[in-house]
Amino acid sequence: MADDSEWDWIDALRKRTAAHPSAPIGIGDDAALLRCAGRETLVATDMLMDGVDFVVGETPPELIGRKCLAVNLSDIAAMAGRPRAMFISLALPRRGGRALVEGLYAGLEPLAREFDVALAGGDTNAWDGPLVVNVTVVGEPVAPGPVARSGARPGDVVFVTGPLGGSLPSLRHCTFTPRVREALALLAAAPLHAMIDLSDGLATDLSHIARESGCGIVIEAERVPVHADVPSGDHSDRLRRALTDGEDFELAFCVSANDAARLESDPPAGVALHRIGEVVAGSGLMLRQGADQRPIDRTGWQHRFA
Amino acid sequence: MADDSEWDWIDALRKRTAAHPSAPIGIGDDAALLRCAGRETLVATDMLMDGVDFVVGETPPELIGRKCLAVNLSDIAAMAGRPRAMFISLALPRRGGRALVEGLYAGLEPLAREFDVALAGGDTNAWDGPLVVNVTVVGEPVAPGPVARSGARPGDVVFVTGPLGGSLPSLRHCTFTPRVREALALLAAAPLHAMIDLSDGLATDLSHIARESGCGIVIEAERVPVHADVPSGDHSDRLRRALTDGEDFELAFCVSANDAARLESDPPAGVALHRIGEVVAGSGLMLRQGADQRPIDRTGWQHRFA
Repeated sequence: MADDSEWDWIDALRKRTAAHPSAPIGIGDDAALLRCAGRETLVATDMLMDGVDFVVGETPPELIGRKCLAVNLSDIAAMAGRPRAMFISLALPRRGGRALVEGLYAGLEPLAREFDVALAGGDTNAWDGPLVVNVTVVGEPVAPGPVARSGARPGDVVFVTGPLGGSLPSLRHCTFTPRVREALALLAAAPLHAMIDLSDGLATDLSHIARESGCGIVIEAERVPVHADVPSGDHSDRLRRALTDGEDFELAFCVSANDAARLESDPPAGVALHRIGEVVAGSGLMLRQGADQRPIDRTGWQHRFA
Repeated sequence: MADDSEWDWIDALRKRTAAHPSAPIGIGDDAALLRCAGRETLVATDMLMDGVDFVVGETPPELIGRKCLAVNLSDIAAMAGRPRAMFISLALPRRGGRALVEGLYAGLEPLAREFDVALAGGDTNAWDGPLVVNVTVVGEPVAPGPVARSGARPGDVVFVTGPLGGSLPSLRHCTFTPRVREALALLAAAPLHAMIDLSDGLATDLSHIARESGCGIVIEAERVPVHADVPSGDHSDRLRRALTDGEDFELAFCVSANDAARLESDPPAGVALHRIGEVVAGSGLMLRQGADQRPIDRTGWQHRFA
């Protein structure tokens, strides 16, 4: 049932979660903004499970560990923050747990060093169930950020930082580089109205920006960059995969039309820019193909329970 | 194998985890102390699993949710901090997941309100495995804290804040009140040299203080307060349960002998004080019964994997 999805639960939770001075932007963005004694902190947390986000025995433990950290760094990047410390909680299967934990850390530690993220704590457990990893990353907002999902305005241009689709079969969902540096370079180059990392698929993730910003977004089909990991074939099939495969972990962001032109003529070093659409008055997500423009559903990945 | 336990892994991890300016006290205390741009933050995180920390179908979901938050508030209390925000990550079994998540939140929300802890984020997932809950709590250190495990000195007196043992069968491991208020009252009343919350059992938890502080600790058998939840019977049996049952979530702390006398003559309002032993030069844990004093193992609960 569509109304029994993860999102509906989060919606219900948001409605009953009163705004609290410790958490000024509330739940539901890429990372939480905490305000304690006048200082702001970003916190991202993701739980990844065997059989859902990776498959133990198929995905090497090093790649599993790397992914579990990288998705959280990507969430901090989506707020244009700087990651600082990580917390690793593990439910390890009893059989083979020691080799697994060694592999997980062997995969995540080099990524932590690359982004100067300290191992600050966690909780290591063994049980009779499958592997579950929860990573929490604490970061610092960088002025004039943090960048939420809610600031897009009609007339804004929508960009993504790389090609999309085909991430799962190619294992790019484990090997991707979180766009932390790119986000900081963009933040320094232009006022970012809204930003999100593309984890659930472009269609789903842009619909979050549209809804949080109270706007609509028009995606221009021929501008969506399709990743080389998507097998060649029918064009509309490849487009659908770029829109819905998910786990690309590129950034999507919105800037004014003036800033868009400025970024395109002088892009920040090391940042790939793909203009894919625009923000419009109204609501929802539309796909424009030539003269044809029609609403599309958010049909990306979502967890369901009944 | 004893050398394949959770602790050995954490030891190995600590040895290879270089000190980092973002995490000045390193891993392995009750909560992490983060230092970002001059400000300090406490972070506690615990992963709890069906069949290990609770049993879905036996333990009501409300009590499971309450416990998952309470154990983290207890970790913040053990540093004499003030909890401020929480992050709830869930791996929900697909079947019955919606009722389960409602119950979990119905149990944890009143406790969050009692301690003024904001729901700031999390990650809600469904899968085919058993329930896994990871809670992260962010808190503020309170001057002159935070109180680590490492500051006990020979001559210090060891106190606990309540009777111990029998927590699991009575469900007290789910219904306990985290000692946040008690910790802050004690912090205001006396310099606390070391503190820990009693999750793994008094013997295990005091051995952490002894090791981190480079001291020994002598427990006086007849002073250990045995909880009424422990069935009456053989005295040494009841003592063993108070030493090793675990999940009491009382605080154990060390203060100078002078401060100990002062606290006993004028205890902070609402704080139960049980003097149970003393810190000595040397190492390890000893149990004194009359004239007899002998080393004891840390024989509390520990997770094993092979």
